Amino acid sequence: MTKPLRIALAGLGTVGGGVVRLLDANGELIARRAGRAIEVVAVSARDRGKDRGFDLSRFAWIDDPAELVRHPDIDVVVELVGGSDGPALALARATLGAGKSLVTANKAMIAHHGLELARAAEAAQVALKFEAAVAGGVPVIKGLREGAAANVIGSVYGILNGTCNFILSKMEAEGRDFADILSEAQALGYAEADPSFDIDGVDAAHKLSILASIAFGAQPAFGDVAATGIRHVMAADIAEAAALGYRVRLLGVADAGPHGLFQRVHPHLVPLSHPLAHVVGSTNAVVAEGNFVGRLLFQGAGAGDGPTASAVVADLIDIARGEFGPPYAMPADALADQPAADTGERRGRHYLRFEVVDKVGVLAEIAAAMRDAGVSIESLMQRGATAGGAVLVAIVTHEVPERSVTHALEKLRGSPSLAGAPMWMHIVAG
Amino acid sequence: MTKPLRIALAGLGTVGGGVVRLLDANGELIARRAGRAIEVVAVSARDRGKDRGFDLSRFAWIDDPAELVRHPDIDVVVELVGGSDGPALALARATLGAGKSLVTANKAMIAHHGLELARAAEAAQVALKFEAAVAGGVPVIKGLREGAAANVIGSVYGILNGTCNFILSKMEAEGRDFADILSEAQALGYAEADPSFDIDGVDAAHKLSILASIAFGAQPAFGDVAATGIRHVMAADIAEAAALGYRVRLLGVADAGPHGLFQRVHPHLVPLSHPLAHVVGSTNAVVAEGNFVGRLLFQGAGAGDGPTASAVVADLIDIARGEFGPPYAMPADALADQPAADTGERRGRHYLRFEVVDKVGVLAEIAAAMRDAGVSIESLMQRGATAGGAVLVAIVTHEVPERSVTHALEKLRGSPSLAGAPMWMHIVAG
Repeated sequence: MTKPLRIALAGLGTVGGGVVRLLDANGELIARRAGRAIEVVAVSARDRGKDRGFDLSRFAWIDDPAELVRHPDIDVVVELVGGSDGPALALARATLGAGKSLVTANKAMIAHHGLELARAAEAAQVALKFEAAVAGGVPVIKGLREGAAANVIGSVYGILNGTCNFILSKMEAEGRDFADILSEAQALGYAEADPSFDIDGVDAAHKLSILASIAFGAQPAFGDVAATGIRHVMAADIAEAAALGYRVRLLGVADAGPHGLFQRVHPHLVPLSHPLAHVVGSTNAVVAEGNFVGRLLFQGAGAGDGPTASAVVADLIDIARGEFGPPYAMPADALADQPAADTGERRGRHYLRFEVVDKVGVLAEIAAAMRDAGVSIESLMQRGATAGGAVLVAIVTHEVPERSVTHALEKLRGSPSLAGAPMWMHIVAG
Repeated sequence: MTKPLRIALAGLGTVGGGVVRLLDANGELIARRAGRAIEVVAVSARDRGKDRGFDLSRFAWIDDPAELVRHPDIDVVVELVGGSDGPALALARATLGAGKSLVTANKAMIAHHGLELARAAEAAQVALKFEAAVAGGVPVIKGLREGAAANVIGSVYGILNGTCNFILSKMEAEGRDFADILSEAQALGYAEADPSFDIDGVDAAHKLSILASIAFGAQPAFGDVAATGIRHVMAADIAEAAALGYRVRLLGVADAGPHGLFQRVHPHLVPLSHPLAHVVGSTNAVVAEGNFVGRLLFQGAGAGDGPTASAVVADLIDIARGEFGPPYAMPADALADQPAADTGERRGRHYLRFEVVDKVGVLAEIAAAMRDAGVSIESLMQRGATAGGAVLVAIVTHEVPERSVTHALEKLRGSPSLAGAPMWMHIVAG
């Protein structure tokens, strides 16, 4: 058996601890599968004294993570520090610059700096791998980069944030409102104290831009992802959707066409005939549509120490086996620089919900705005007043260009008939 | 760019034609992803004159597939001839014996001779890859071999035969009986003229034994797979299952415990809370349960020229990239020789359906047999007579060892009260 793959681990939080525990538990099996052992040699973390449930004394302790790179005989640095810039980025640059391989779970860093890091890895002919950065334990980067590699991928989309899916599933199951469930999720530790990265769609946007780049052979363009979260989804929206045969899911959706790269994170109505409608709780799921393979679905736990460690170690096994190539499935210089797509011409069906003042003429005003913008209405439902006294009007449109919906909403903007900003959700085709 | 990967293609049927069309359509993108072109150089098939929709004249035509190996400058032979033995096996042995890599979609050959072929590939340090042999276009072998490689996998199970899932879904949607739907599927070309490999579970058993070997690091043991098909599933069974909150699915199920390797293909009741309950039509789906990653699901098209070609070419891309290792994820000699598990001690809930003669005392006889064997009944439903005049009695048991169910059925064997063989389905936990 060849000599072990020697690892330096930066960060011993949830995921870092998971990696140590995984290698302790499954190390022998992994060595048989990888053809060599994977050994943690050195670690760096903020607090040396903290009880993590395993013995730290067998590892070299390095106070400054940036020093890990200079530890002798290291093959790979595993970066689990987090943050798009700062110490994580400094460590990543130093690692690749020193000709060592890098494995990371850091979606923010890869979304912002992945292309630069991929160029550095390719120049040094080392690995840069980040399976754990997208959909936790689900091997979806491998699925796109290798499993679906024979296909022109037309679109990639899915449930990329477990916290949002947990909240939406629970809102649906219990008929409760967003703020209520969020507080409960925070109390249980399922949502962060500052939940905005999750619930405003930023985390999903990071992941989507990574997937899109690999799927379409396009340069990562995180700045072009239009992201809306789930803060404004009401229990009533979920009930209306259910009555129509849909479930509400926060989806990241990307496709690549002749008009550029489309990337959006937004709440969607998903029909019950679609597998994503049946993904509940904090599970993640990604669909890729290939021109020969058709629809592929990858599903599993999107977060947590075990699943994320599973993805980190899968990357290490690939490196131990010598089975790695360019981080984005093709050399960074071969990635196309695609403009962001114009979304106005995209055709689809839409869900629009208005909180309106309960007075004569409001429905006529909304209907007129739709008509004048060329938005054809498939169904309209008006339900009783909310706790605040407003009335809800929910509309499902026929298939129309998004530009028309934008126009209709512009016509209604500032209308005294509206008691709040309208809710717009896209409807996924069956 | 390095020189092309040169392919010899044996078999130009549905899948072989798909491979040629895929490489024609996506060749340029594949070359960017693989770092080199993939070129078909020589082909062999039964009928040279048949119109396949593409130009054959650019390939060297070889009448005898066994001769493909001797064609100069071939890197890989793609075997799409089919059949567990005969010309396919001869070609596979000759290919690996000559130190060339082999890619195949031939599940029967791999199920029967995979270990021998893996040893030959390892000895020659070439690739043996068979992603297309299991679940068509779904990269589930890669998912287990690489994506989940960090995990001890406790069980792997799923919908492995698209024809059966198509028939069961259609029986459910339309309330029609098996024979009726099978005839229709045959007329439409969705089922073979001789459908027994599919509907008796043999095809799923081939695939299950391949998955089990990779998942558990065990020597393939196709002979130990207990396989039952869907011939005896009645529309009434599906209706009873639906009334209880289940769907009927033909599942291949394998797990590895201290008591040996368990492998079974059998109709199961799957609760609506489980993702496999929502897999309809000819789609395949595989679940793997890992000790760190939890439940992973891989889903997609299980057959057809496009999806299968996608998997074949994904294997070729791996070979072009030099990213391949031992076919079963670890060296063939490291695979454990596991005995078949004793199923008697397996605990679970069960569905039993009896066709009984409509006379006094029948229910008492069944209930007594259950009691005497220690099978505790959770629910019992008796419905009106079938077209043939028999009455159906369906039982759901509490969790009991399988041995007890076997004993109960033995007690009832040959009873004049029964109008046919009982139907026994296992119930998947939620």
